[in-house]
Amino acid sequence: MKTPKNSEVVMTELVLPNDTNMLGNLLGGRLMHWIDIAAALAAMKHAGRICVTASVDEINFNEPIRLGDVVKIYASVNRAFKTSVEVGVKTVRVTIEGDEVPSNKAYLTFVALDNDRRPIAVPPLTLETEEEKRRYDEAGFRREQRLRNREQLHALREQRQMQS
Amino acid sequence: MKTPKNSEVVMTELVLPNDTNMLGNLLGGRLMHWIDIAAALAAMKHAGRICVTASVDEINFNEPIRLGDVVKIYASVNRAFKTSVEVGVKTVRVTIEGDEVPSNKAYLTFVALDNDRRPIAVPPLTLETEEEKRRYDEAGFRREQRLRNREQLHALREQRQMQS
Amino acid sequence: MKTPKNSEVVMTELVLPNDTNMLGNLLGGRLMHWIDIAAALAAMKHAGRICVTASVDEINFNEPIRLGDVVKIYASVNRAFKTSVEVGVKTVRVTIEGDEVPSNKAYLTFVALDNDRRPIAVPPLTLETEEEKRRYDEAGFRREQRLRNREQLHALREQRQMQS
Amino acid sequence: MKTPKNSEVVMTELVLPNDTNMLGNLLGGRLMHWIDIAAALAAMKHAGRICVTASVDEINFNEPIRLGDVVKIYASVNRAFKTSVEVGVKTVRVTIEGDEVPSNKAYLTFVALDNDRRPIAVPPLTLETEEEKRRYDEAGFRREQRLRNREQLHALREQRQMQS
Amino acid sequence: MKTPKNSEVVMTELVLPNDTNMLGNLLGGRLMHWIDIAAALAAMKHAGRICVTASVDEINFNEPIRLGDVVKIYASVNRAFKTSVEVGVKTVRVTIEGDEVPSNKAYLTFVALDNDRRPIAVPPLTLETEEEKRRYDEAGFRREQRLRNREQLHALREQRQMQS
Amino acid sequence: MKTPKNSEVVMTELVLPNDTNMLGNLLGGRLMHWIDIAAALAAMKHAGRICVTASVDEINFNEPIRLGDVVKIYASVNRAFKTSVEVGVKTVRVTIEGDEVPSNKAYLTFVALDNDRRPIAVPPLTLETEEEKRRYDEAGFRREQRLRNREQLHALREQRQMQS
Repeated sequence: MKTPKNSEVVMTELVLPNDTNMLGNLLGGRLMHWIDIAAALAAMKHAGRICVTASVDEINFNEPIRLGDVVKIYASVNRAFKTSVEVGVKTVRVTIEGDEVPSNKAYLTFVALDNDRRPIAVPPLTLETEEEKRRYDEAGFRREQRLRNREQLHALREQRQMQS
Repeated sequence: MKTPKNSEVVMTELVLPNDTNMLGNLLGGRLMHWIDIAAALAAMKHAGRICVTASVDEINFNEPIRLGDVVKIYASVNRAFKTSVEVGVKTVRVTIEGDEVPSNKAYLTFVALDNDRRPIAVPPLTLETEEEKRRYDEAGFRREQRLRNREQLHALREQRQMQS
Repeated sequence: MKTPKNSEVVMTELVLPNDTNMLGNLLGGRLMHWIDIAAALAAMKHAGRICVTASVDEINFNEPIRLGDVVKIYASVNRAFKTSVEVGVKTVRVTIEGDEVPSNKAYLTFVALDNDRRPIAVPPLTLETEEEKRRYDEAGFRREQRLRNREQLHALREQRQMQS
Repeated sequence: MKTPKNSEVVMTELVLPNDTNMLGNLLGGRLMHWIDIAAALAAMKHAGRICVTASVDEINFNEPIRLGDVVKIYASVNRAFKTSVEVGVKTVRVTIEGDEVPSNKAYLTFVALDNDRRPIAVPPLTLETEEEKRRYDEAGFRREQRLRNREQLHALREQRQMQS
Repeated sequence: MKTPKNSEVVMTELVLPNDTNMLGNLLGGRLMHWIDIAAALAAMKHAGRICVTASVDEINFNEPIRLGDVVKIYASVNRAFKTSVEVGVKTVRVTIEGDEVPSNKAYLTFVALDNDRRPIAVPPLTLETEEEKRRYDEAGFRREQRLRNREQLHALREQRQMQS
Repeated sequence: MKTPKNSEVVMTELVLPNDTNMLGNLLGGRLMHWIDIAAALAAMKHAGRICVTASVDEINFNEPIRLGDVVKIYASVNRAFKTSVEVGVKTVRVTIEGDEVPSNKAYLTFVALDNDRRPIAVPPLTLETEEEKRRYDEAGFRREQRLRNREQLHALREQRQMQS
């Protein structure tokens, strides 16, 4: 029996000079790198297998994170599909007083691989709390949105080609 | 007059051991880091200003990229909004024969900042080709999708809270 | 009121190719680097101040950690002295099944600095559990050992000089 | 048929804090590292083989490049010899207005290797423009200069030894 | 015949931005990384074998080292045990005038490994100078201290458990 | 009084996975980076000033250096000009038996800067040994060669332009 809690990963990173741009702000791509590592570890904890990134949902960067800031990254599995999992990642900036200021949310999908690098089934996810059920439902919702978004964009392109 | 062509950025990266996971595949977060840098450079070329990442749209990782592979990253501005731009990024894997195999597409939004780090207006984008017009329209379409996606997710959460 | 729990820091690291030697084992100095960062973050959480490493106690490396392994680093304050704290660090190797195999223990002392980079008093540490009291006592014990070790080595050198 | 154009490589790099010295200037060795990677990629594109650096001609550093600057590196094959090629590299600093300010020129020679790491013949280079012919001639000229320089230095040393 | 001199290693490092914390001071863990590499090289020079870090003695950080400083690291074998060696490391900060200001001392133990990664005997150490004999004696002294420290800490824990 | 000996710098580097290409060979650009750092340190020791790279002479890469190899880099000032110095660098590969196998030679010129970043005079170099005199003469010889090479290349280009 595997719960979201079982897959939880916590990473703590100190923003060093090389992680920043010329404004002294954390580079967006550096944060994405940390998010990807944390999420991969959560996926592997759940699957008990090597997992590779399949897709990353929209990420928003509202709060600048600065040189010397401490960043905490929380990742855990939201939903298990057949051979893949959606991992939710929350990042916070930790103040010198120890308060955690929310900075980003990200949702990544990983595929589990067997020893021949082919997709392999992952264990089901056992939900225990209301919060976990909410995340589970939203993961399915996002999956549908992704599918619909792609279809709509595809339709837009086809329509355009027919006009030209 | 600034066209998408004016903002074009080409980066070439060689996948070195430290860019890879234990399977010898390029780390997803490492690719995202390169994509973010290339896109930021394109945004800055258009805006003539320091630009910071505001959001990254869904990215899919279908094709594994491997140790020793050469990756080319193409970025250019698709659409200018008031103080922000959408940058489209295309990544390809270059074979030893020199062929370019498409690997990823990504869409990032950047905000231009003045010297006091406040958002500042960016120049309009002049479109010249049909291809550029298509990208421009799709950028607007993605923006609407993002907005609608957030609203739908918000509605889902409210509905849930009312039920409980 | 500040407890050891309040200062707890958890870091998760994936051992990448550049962290390893030619045997594919994690470099000792790389692990020490992670231990130092985690411990500094715990010290800063307790002190609410910038903290700098003053000393690192003996560290033993028994279990080789390998390329692709996941390492978790737990750090928390064991004892607060006048302007310094002892931080205890425990590192574990996480197996693909999610089990945590103990690898190293380390004890580091940090000094808290004010804005002029002079040592400044740190808050007292409130102990709640038996385990926390044990760590507190051992921190004092190690401090005495360090002092006595230095004195003995000093005496040995003096004795030697007198003989020659 | 392989032209210099076919081997062209463009790299774009953003100068980050760790690429700079204590004056905030790009480290010479860091630039050489980028030049070497870009040139190796151009050599491999021409040869369709793994290529290793055989020699680097004199490089001059006139223009300081600074933290936050964008550097573009252009590389293409100037001349194919039997198992080696000369690659010409031009680096420019890109201003925030998008202008390209020339900074360095470099000429590197690479050897193509077969699967047993022995030198292997490279394809001939087809020249199309006057500019390409000029570069081709100069590559031969530099080769002669290198040879003559070494001979002269060798003669100087012999003469010296005979005198002593 | 192998003397301490035969195993001597000198490393010179320039403190670059990414090696420093937000105060512009060299990170303790970064220095430990350099110390570990230098000591490993000295151990391997003596043993003629791959050597892995077994333990690191207490290290004190008194003198802050700063961005742009040059650090020299001297390492040589103090004593050879059966399958292990103690390496002494001295680090100095080099001023712009070329003076060497002592900063840290460290003592590390390495184990030599054969091709199957099992401990293998190391050559004896031939002592020539009084200074070398002093270091040899102190290495034995430290080993006894380490053993006694562990025993005392162990006794403390047992006593505690009996009381509870 | 400043001799070449006074400016001597020794660096020792262990070739780690990220320093190598897909053949497991040390990247040429990585070696150039180490050579540049070592030479800059030697120049600064002589000048007692911040020094920046002005030019790097031809470097040849004959001997492949491999993952796990130890590289030693020796640098010292060959000749002092008015505001610049030529630094000679010798790199060797150290075998597991401790033998030093010559790998590369490099000659770099550095300019000394005052606090306003303008070139400033460097102290004269006092020569003591025959070897030092040879290096001094050869530094002058190389300078003449560089000058003549540039002139010849310039003449070649002019001649070409007149023909076209």
